[in-house]
Amino acid sequence: MLMQQIELNVDGMTCHGCSGRLQRVLEATAGVSTAQVVLDTQHVTVDYDDTRIDPSVIYHAITDAGFSVISA
Amino acid sequence: MLMQQIELNVDGMTCHGCSGRLQRVLEATAGVSTAQVVLDTQHVTVDYDDTRIDPSVIYHAITDAGFSVISA
Repeated sequence: MLMQQIELNVDGMTCHGCSGRLQRVLEATAGVSTAQVVLDTQHVTVDYDDTRIDPSVIYHAITDAGFSVISA
Repeated sequence: MLMQQIELNVDGMTCHGCSGRLQRVLEATAGVSTAQVVLDTQHVTVDYDDTRIDPSVIYHAITDAGFSVISA
């Protein structure tokens, strides 16, 4: 296991339901240990095991949940 | 193509951002033609081609987006 952290900005969150849901989706993704999602700043921080997944998996989890990654 | 319609109740939508996002996720699912998502009633109606997908695909799209199906 080699933990890495990625920080992203995510568009499309309009309430705490949105941000809480995105956090749950990310933390349910295999290889992700923790996700922090801040509604006001649209900032997402994800700790993941880079022997199990690469960042593209995280991007896909976000877009599959209906949000957009606006910057990394 | 054989169009079918399924009606579901979905838990977890708390704003129009949520319901609009779920509609986009469903309509981006291969085999789905249209999805109607009503925030106030939590009611979701999906028209799909049952030669391409079965209802389990629709359930998974909803849960992958972080929502729960509470009744069919």
